Amino acid sequence: MTFTDIDRLSISTIRLLAADQVSKANSGHPGAPLGLAPAAHVIWSQMKMNPKNPDWIARDRFVLSNGHAVALLYSMLHLTGYPLSIEDLKHFRQLGSKTPGHPEFELPGVEVTTGPLGQGISNAVGMAIAQKQFAATYNKPGFNLSDSFIYTICGDGCLQEGISSEASSLAGHLQLGNLIVIYDDNRITIDGSTAISFDEDVAKRYEAYGWEVLHVENGNEDLDAIAKAIAHAKTTVNKPTMIKLTTTIGYGSLKAGDHSVHGSPLSKDDLRQIKTKFGFNPDKSFQVPQEVYDHYQATILKPGQEANAKWDALFKQYQQKFPELGAELKRRLAGELPEGWESKLPTYKPGESALATRKLSEIVFQHLNESVPEIIGGSADLTPSNLTRWKEAVDFQPDVTGFGSYAGRYIRYGIREHGMGAIMNGISAFGANYKPYGGAFFNFLGYAAGAIRVSALAGHPVIWVATHDSIGVGEDGPTHQPIESLAHFRAMPNTHVWRPADGNEVSAAYKVALTSKHTPSIVALTRQNLPQLEGSSIENAVKGGYVLQDVENPDIIIAATGSEVSLSVEAAKLLAAKGIKARIVSLPDFLNFDKQPEEYRLSVLPDGVPILSVEVLSTSGWGKYAHQHFGLNRFGESGPAPQVFKYFDFTPEGVATRAEKTVNFYKGKDLISPLRTAF
Amino acid sequence: MTFTDIDRLSISTIRLLAADQVSKANSGHPGAPLGLAPAAHVIWSQMKMNPKNPDWIARDRFVLSNGHAVALLYSMLHLTGYPLSIEDLKHFRQLGSKTPGHPEFELPGVEVTTGPLGQGISNAVGMAIAQKQFAATYNKPGFNLSDSFIYTICGDGCLQEGISSEASSLAGHLQLGNLIVIYDDNRITIDGSTAISFDEDVAKRYEAYGWEVLHVENGNEDLDAIAKAIAHAKTTVNKPTMIKLTTTIGYGSLKAGDHSVHGSPLSKDDLRQIKTKFGFNPDKSFQVPQEVYDHYQATILKPGQEANAKWDALFKQYQQKFPELGAELKRRLAGELPEGWESKLPTYKPGESALATRKLSEIVFQHLNESVPEIIGGSADLTPSNLTRWKEAVDFQPDVTGFGSYAGRYIRYGIREHGMGAIMNGISAFGANYKPYGGAFFNFLGYAAGAIRVSALAGHPVIWVATHDSIGVGEDGPTHQPIESLAHFRAMPNTHVWRPADGNEVSAAYKVALTSKHTPSIVALTRQNLPQLEGSSIENAVKGGYVLQDVENPDIIIAATGSEVSLSVEAAKLLAAKGIKARIVSLPDFLNFDKQPEEYRLSVLPDGVPILSVEVLSTSGWGKYAHQHFGLNRFGESGPAPQVFKYFDFTPEGVATRAEKTVNFYKGKDLISPLRTAF
Repeated sequence: MTFTDIDRLSISTIRLLAADQVSKANSGHPGAPLGLAPAAHVIWSQMKMNPKNPDWIARDRFVLSNGHAVALLYSMLHLTGYPLSIEDLKHFRQLGSKTPGHPEFELPGVEVTTGPLGQGISNAVGMAIAQKQFAATYNKPGFNLSDSFIYTICGDGCLQEGISSEASSLAGHLQLGNLIVIYDDNRITIDGSTAISFDEDVAKRYEAYGWEVLHVENGNEDLDAIAKAIAHAKTTVNKPTMIKLTTTIGYGSLKAGDHSVHGSPLSKDDLRQIKTKFGFNPDKSFQVPQEVYDHYQATILKPGQEANAKWDALFKQYQQKFPELGAELKRRLAGELPEGWESKLPTYKPGESALATRKLSEIVFQHLNESVPEIIGGSADLTPSNLTRWKEAVDFQPDVTGFGSYAGRYIRYGIREHGMGAIMNGISAFGANYKPYGGAFFNFLGYAAGAIRVSALAGHPVIWVATHDSIGVGEDGPTHQPIESLAHFRAMPNTHVWRPADGNEVSAAYKVALTSKHTPSIVALTRQNLPQLEGSSIENAVKGGYVLQDVENPDIIIAATGSEVSLSVEAAKLLAAKGIKARIVSLPDFLNFDKQPEEYRLSVLPDGVPILSVEVLSTSGWGKYAHQHFGLNRFGESGPAPQVFKYFDFTPEGVATRAEKTVNFYKGKDLISPLRTAF
Repeated sequence: MTFTDIDRLSISTIRLLAADQVSKANSGHPGAPLGLAPAAHVIWSQMKMNPKNPDWIARDRFVLSNGHAVALLYSMLHLTGYPLSIEDLKHFRQLGSKTPGHPEFELPGVEVTTGPLGQGISNAVGMAIAQKQFAATYNKPGFNLSDSFIYTICGDGCLQEGISSEASSLAGHLQLGNLIVIYDDNRITIDGSTAISFDEDVAKRYEAYGWEVLHVENGNEDLDAIAKAIAHAKTTVNKPTMIKLTTTIGYGSLKAGDHSVHGSPLSKDDLRQIKTKFGFNPDKSFQVPQEVYDHYQATILKPGQEANAKWDALFKQYQQKFPELGAELKRRLAGELPEGWESKLPTYKPGESALATRKLSEIVFQHLNESVPEIIGGSADLTPSNLTRWKEAVDFQPDVTGFGSYAGRYIRYGIREHGMGAIMNGISAFGANYKPYGGAFFNFLGYAAGAIRVSALAGHPVIWVATHDSIGVGEDGPTHQPIESLAHFRAMPNTHVWRPADGNEVSAAYKVALTSKHTPSIVALTRQNLPQLEGSSIENAVKGGYVLQDVENPDIIIAATGSEVSLSVEAAKLLAAKGIKARIVSLPDFLNFDKQPEEYRLSVLPDGVPILSVEVLSTSGWGKYAHQHFGLNRFGESGPAPQVFKYFDFTPEGVATRAEKTVNFYKGKDLISPLRTAF
């Protein structure tokens, strides 16, 4: 690439559009966009993308990991022809606008939601994994369907966060040559100079991870050096590349190089002087010279549309030459699962072997892996405990390691829960209907909460195989026994939190999780065996809550999940012997239950009958379904699991006693269902 | 140190005691103890400690970061004279024993609770910070009150977790020469060889952090090399040291070097052969040769007791020579705050300036910093937003950096929330009544959830200054606006979750937080200004919940927290105009409210009156106090904060409307307080 005045004019335009957005909103971050405009311009100028078809699977990806610099991204999207108008830029950070304060996945051209630092670069690792897997699966000689690169810009913040260390270490191991990270080395964070807390040798650290590391010394102006570094990175096939780009935060501003320019609009005077400095009219805002539009149209939009059209033609030929793979890919690109896939979900009858729900989850993967090739998953180094690997699985590994191949679909994540979470989001965001899952002990989903929240907010339908879901962990003790975990994730909007009670409910959880388009799922699974229940079925369980076992005119309803459902069934027998009639309700997923029609929900949890919740974790959150709660609002104990259950009185007798007390407590009182709301 | 047969016999004893514990429990992790016994022996043999006074402030610290290897630690504690008997070892992993499945802080000699990987090494960074701060504050020429080292053993798992990256990077910056980490390089994790997911160059990475890195090639047997490395590390004053110790997992076992020996007991035959191999009777268990006891008594217990006695004498002299500092330190070692410190807490009267509660929090630090020298805190790079730094604060920094001194009490944590959480736990665990606090946006406490859980479980009374506590964040949008955060941490046992409504409540939060001995506190604070309320006081608020404003025979009770309290007060005025009488209850901390006598709680939330909760986050968890809930069970929006509040109808009118609907809904119905429980 050779650069001329039009490139410099384009860069000035980007810079001033970003500054204007922040000033108009009187809120936001001008510093990073001013420093990073040249890098963004050079990167985008050689990226393969079609702004008129942002979902084109063969596009290069761009991730702005330092999401607070979003005004830069909005400028780029506008200038290159994505559906984002100057009016949208003028509504930056305003209620209901298309341009919120941090990038959100919903906007075409925004590859992932960023802002929580460290997520974006880790998402990019996931995209790079997906691209490698996609290419290894579908590329054929003469049919190079995918050769895209994943570009990421990140700042010091992203590299201080542990999540990026986890993902970057794995990226090095996996030799992801398609990943190019531009590290904005501007030596400034909110507290001041990075020298006060972050003087490690970042380049050396990334070399230690197995990355190629390059340095551009004058990122403010040296377009040739930026272009050269990117060109070099693209030829480095067996290593991810970090380009350390030394820039000046707030370049052009009177406050350039100072941390005060990070997160506050430029002053009026400063905004005027910077416009003058870059040859623009200081009295005008949101100025885009027509030649800049023309330039991007000629260098990005048009070539991108042409490349997309060429690819479409190639893919047509591909479908003829490779009818099976072609049909599969076409289906995946349409976001559809293979027809009839649900029929592979195992079902169970009462009396069949008692099994741990983690084992039942393994059986699901065993049954589905062949017919649903978009399933790609792994575990944070707990494969033999999470039971996440089907027998014939091939590990996703560089061929040269001898451990697997890039066409493999089982990922050895290492002990990196947070990184795994963000990588799953990235795999999902790549497209092609990828269905990523990851295994961990339920308690350690807390380590990944930051990434799980982004899944829920951005709507990545990833799946957490969260085994060892209660004090049933046993001897490992309270450090490993979840208490607050269900309450935590149930309170997170747009999150399925499944706690299945038997095999049919496990199948139901996966049925919903895999068909979900915009909602992540956590499937909490037992370490210990559970019986196959009378009354359970996939059809019932997908509703999130249902009457498992009923009686006429119940004296009490016991609502339970997971391992406490069979316990409650046993308790009901003890109660029956005492003449107390109990209905048993299983509530494996609050989110789906809440989506059912009111009539249905009230048929499960009606007025007039006391409802007792039984779940061996925190009772928090159960108020919306039950009047009284039997749970565990303290940390657990180390000991053999059956003894620990007994210690906390989670036995049929313990449940029955509390049910009886609940019945007596409400005797003679009028009771309405907790589902009834006043507004 | 020179090593002889008695050292080798001691090491064999440690190995077999650990293997016996796991076999007797039929549960646990024999692999790491078998490989690490030599390192533990050599480290402990030169540590300064008094097993009869485990809290001696001048002791060296030992942290077992790979907590699953706890059988090793129990063996050491038993052999060196801590109060842990052979009987206790025989009850390893049994209910109610002193020897749970992972190390728990409560047991004398266990410096920190470990098991969740990466926490221990990060706690150790905190201890090293505390030791440096302690020494810089109290050491005087001729009075070397503290020169201790912090020893840590960790495995691959700890180093893969991002939290350790965060803490280690900071440790390098802070030049913590008192920190010595032994990295058990056994090349095995649960999934198999580290080669499948973790082949980065760990040594190079730690050098990049600014650490000294040494290598012991034969950690299984080469005691001299271990001792030499430790001796070298101790002379490295301006860098933390990592000793990469290459060992064989399960050394001595037939399964040595295989991942199957990581987490399962040795087979009976294997246990017999390993005992024979090490010269022990294969028919016996829990064997300790008397000469091993004698050896540890002579080399650890006795010298430790003598050193402790010498120190006691030195400290007596110190108190005479430096009466003020001496008295202060004596007080701190007794775990007492300075007399009358509470009188420095600011109080407010209605009508005084409206201020953001984050600002009111800053005022508390400004008022307390001088008289409470054990307060030590910082922010994860959000100082100007969290307002965590008092004006005169000196940064905790190595003198040579020119940014502060080791006597400083303000820590620049960098953008490392999880690391900060674990470091705070370590500072607290160091002793000397340190009161660590750390600032972050409330939403990003999710990044630190793993460490916060350990605070709660182990009982470290650390303080999170969690600002920007709702959609009041405004323009930064949903990535930065907490929704599930209150529900998450309120469901965590033993955790104060404060959401103060004005200045007096902020002071109350800090009063409880600073006096707390075994409970961490999260103080959720607003970005936006709030009025000083009629009816608030420190005395009321410390109870966690109280009647802020009352009326005779209320038609409704509105229970709110934080910014929604003043909103509810305004709503009550609108309701009064309609003839609806509302009591306003402020519930700034559920944990303390739940600890109040039932009579008091029922006086606040009595039978017979409908109760509406108002809080602009998830309603989950409010069922225990209110019948109806006005909250936000979805993600927020980017826009100016007042507009976002209005968008979600969180206005006086919006609250009043829902209150009225609640009153109408329950008209003519018998209502009992949600506090009433059946059992």
